[in-house]
Amino acid sequence: MSSALERDGPGRGAQASLAEADGPQAQSRVPSEAHSGAHSGAAHQGSAARRDPRAYHPFLRLAALLDPLTPGRSPAPDGRPINLSVGDPMVPPPAYVLEELGADPAPWGRYPAPRGEADYRAACVEYLQRRYDLPAGWLDPDRHVLPVPGTREGLFFAALALSIAAAEQDPTRNAVLLPAPGYHVYMGAAAVAGLAPSFVPTGPDSGFLPDLANLPAHLLRAAQMAYVCSPANPQGAALDAEGWQRLLHLARACGFVLIADECYGEVWLDAPPAGVLPAALAEGGSLEGLLAFHSLSKRASAAGLRCGFVVGDPDLVDRIDACLRMGGAGVPVPVQRAGARLWRDAELAGRTRAFYRDLFARAERILGNRFGFRRPAGGFFLWLDVGDGEAAAKRLWTEAGIKVLPGAYMAGPAGLPGNAGERYIRAALVYEAEISERALRRMVEVLGEEA
Amino acid sequence: MSSALERDGPGRGAQASLAEADGPQAQSRVPSEAHSGAHSGAAHQGSAARRDPRAYHPFLRLAALLDPLTPGRSPAPDGRPINLSVGDPMVPPPAYVLEELGADPAPWGRYPAPRGEADYRAACVEYLQRRYDLPAGWLDPDRHVLPVPGTREGLFFAALALSIAAAEQDPTRNAVLLPAPGYHVYMGAAAVAGLAPSFVPTGPDSGFLPDLANLPAHLLRAAQMAYVCSPANPQGAALDAEGWQRLLHLARACGFVLIADECYGEVWLDAPPAGVLPAALAEGGSLEGLLAFHSLSKRASAAGLRCGFVVGDPDLVDRIDACLRMGGAGVPVPVQRAGARLWRDAELAGRTRAFYRDLFARAERILGNRFGFRRPAGGFFLWLDVGDGEAAAKRLWTEAGIKVLPGAYMAGPAGLPGNAGERYIRAALVYEAEISERALRRMVEVLGEEA
Repeated sequence: MSSALERDGPGRGAQASLAEADGPQAQSRVPSEAHSGAHSGAAHQGSAARRDPRAYHPFLRLAALLDPLTPGRSPAPDGRPINLSVGDPMVPPPAYVLEELGADPAPWGRYPAPRGEADYRAACVEYLQRRYDLPAGWLDPDRHVLPVPGTREGLFFAALALSIAAAEQDPTRNAVLLPAPGYHVYMGAAAVAGLAPSFVPTGPDSGFLPDLANLPAHLLRAAQMAYVCSPANPQGAALDAEGWQRLLHLARACGFVLIADECYGEVWLDAPPAGVLPAALAEGGSLEGLLAFHSLSKRASAAGLRCGFVVGDPDLVDRIDACLRMGGAGVPVPVQRAGARLWRDAELAGRTRAFYRDLFARAERILGNRFGFRRPAGGFFLWLDVGDGEAAAKRLWTEAGIKVLPGAYMAGPAGLPGNAGERYIRAALVYEAEISERALRRMVEVLGEEA
Repeated sequence: MSSALERDGPGRGAQASLAEADGPQAQSRVPSEAHSGAHSGAAHQGSAARRDPRAYHPFLRLAALLDPLTPGRSPAPDGRPINLSVGDPMVPPPAYVLEELGADPAPWGRYPAPRGEADYRAACVEYLQRRYDLPAGWLDPDRHVLPVPGTREGLFFAALALSIAAAEQDPTRNAVLLPAPGYHVYMGAAAVAGLAPSFVPTGPDSGFLPDLANLPAHLLRAAQMAYVCSPANPQGAALDAEGWQRLLHLARACGFVLIADECYGEVWLDAPPAGVLPAALAEGGSLEGLLAFHSLSKRASAAGLRCGFVVGDPDLVDRIDACLRMGGAGVPVPVQRAGARLWRDAELAGRTRAFYRDLFARAERILGNRFGFRRPAGGFFLWLDVGDGEAAAKRLWTEAGIKVLPGAYMAGPAGLPGNAGERYIRAALVYEAEISERALRRMVEVLGEEA
């Protein structure tokens, strides 16, 4: 990436958009491309792949990699494959959700109201006030909060809504800054919305977080929005309060929307990670240009409920709401009722954390400092430097029946030069202790020589 | 519309896209505009409104119309407003759904698999075979069927997926043919996807169905997709077997995708409406270029479940699946289990039909032939010619506390010249008999002089 930085960068840091990376094809791109409406990330692939989400979907790519191969016997007692490729919580949500979900057929008959139930929105605000020590009355449940069926749909529709805002206001402002590696929905949403995914490396040089401030100025000016995840999927790094504040200040100064994905905000090991909302408060209390996404999938191990919310800038919330009314699924009323109880359950996240803390303690004992392992700030993923993530994923599958995700698949479409995830695999710590330990020990055996 | 037909049409019928209607602004458009990438329907509004779904959302427009006004005392015993503007079934789904939804917290903890549960897909195919008398083995549950949380999300993501296909294959093929009036999600999806909504009138001249065959040739050549709803929302008209077959043949000859919205396919009065799948069988059995959408919302009065499916062309199903994996909500596993039972319940739709048949019999007695009322083939809407739909909606609200939808809001964005729904209101027959009768009698009183 040095050539890109020499050309464009302020010379203060190691981060740059991969749109400017010095791969053989990337070098032919002019620095102003991000302004021109080209799709930065996939420009080298030609137009056909620019918007097709299949080019960006890690699990479709993983299926293409592993499905032709025969899995080895896994270390599970029955020898059947162990899937660590997905962050699918294996602990069930609290049984009391059934009191709402199974109580009455009638509310399953009615369309959920687009803005959701008032009590659900109130529970979201109560949760945020408790979690981030926010003053009562600052957040308005009716104007600032919108239920979404999990953060995935919300993050995706945010890109759709903002692509429309970009088309109205300034079509040259079409770049989406996203962490690479990061949650694949950021790049997929940008691509489907016709915006230009711009891959911001999140490697060890920047503490596994995106250093937006040191991006080339033209890219910051071209940005319509930036996705930032903290604690980060996959690396588990978390922004501190100052980090959020600097990011929010930068976003407002440059005129792009900051999208804070805080779906792992309750899954931390040693200390609760800072949130973007206190940063907004510290910056004067405005929610302008800010959207934060929260989910019950991790907090309550309730990924199957499809229940979360977005909070932030009321004008942007209105825009997302308008798109969701057209094409969103809505959150069924009984699910909102269960969700409200889960957001109000102040003990719940502690039990969730205890489960993952135990798994990370076991991982620490088994992995030591192999593969660059370090105890993360939060989340439930191992992000392991194995030299060649794709090769490691194939070996783990064929030799040990263990499915992990090559890091490259989370950091750009196939063929992206300078992919920032190539050396890594992501493995989810979501199984019960016994299976997780067996899988980890076997991973060390299979990949041992690369440690 | 005469000028448009004289210019472009084959002179065989009365239908034309409103993109070519002879309103004051529309006249300035050149016939080739639908080829050029312009947004036919909203071109007169300038670029800002082209993609913003708020311009197309009937309920946001209805709120703007009625919220500033004070509702009158309604004919309900408590005098509170009666909402006939939404097709929200008031009968609950069968209580047995709770056996699946309330049985076990564990499946609420897991992400639904993108393609859904095998048993759910099998139940969908069994249903289709039974309903349309299809041969076993023709439809493949794994390749042809995809669960969607209600048809809304599926219809919307179909436009996203097809906009990507259009960009890859032929960016000039960007028109979306949609019935006007029709379900608002068609135009909203087209607009958000950056395609060009082209409004095909569905008035009395064409039996309240879109006559695609007589559209100007250039518009048929520019079409990427056509939404067709049968039985139709709002008019209740239904295509016969030959009609579906002709449509499918036309779509294939012109090279656009036919999207059959059959969500009212089980809500009929006198005879089961023809389906598009038997037409595909009659045309040789290929599913190429065909997508059909089905939902439990009406069949099972389960709008709050958010459970339906799409069946059709496996390549297109794959494209929709790819977009849904990125930004769709998924259908929770317990919902799919409840849904599978509902699709397999052969008695269920008969009970649903009995409910609506009774309501239509009452409506016939009360309305007679006022407002152009006729017993429709299916659906549960009254589509009444009241001269000026917006004025009637305001009078019903202020004088009688009855909320109905102006037909114009279902036939294009604000300001569309030649709006084909202007004379109408839509009123949903979804309340229990007593309330529905009271509402209908009061509607006749209020609007009587216009009959």
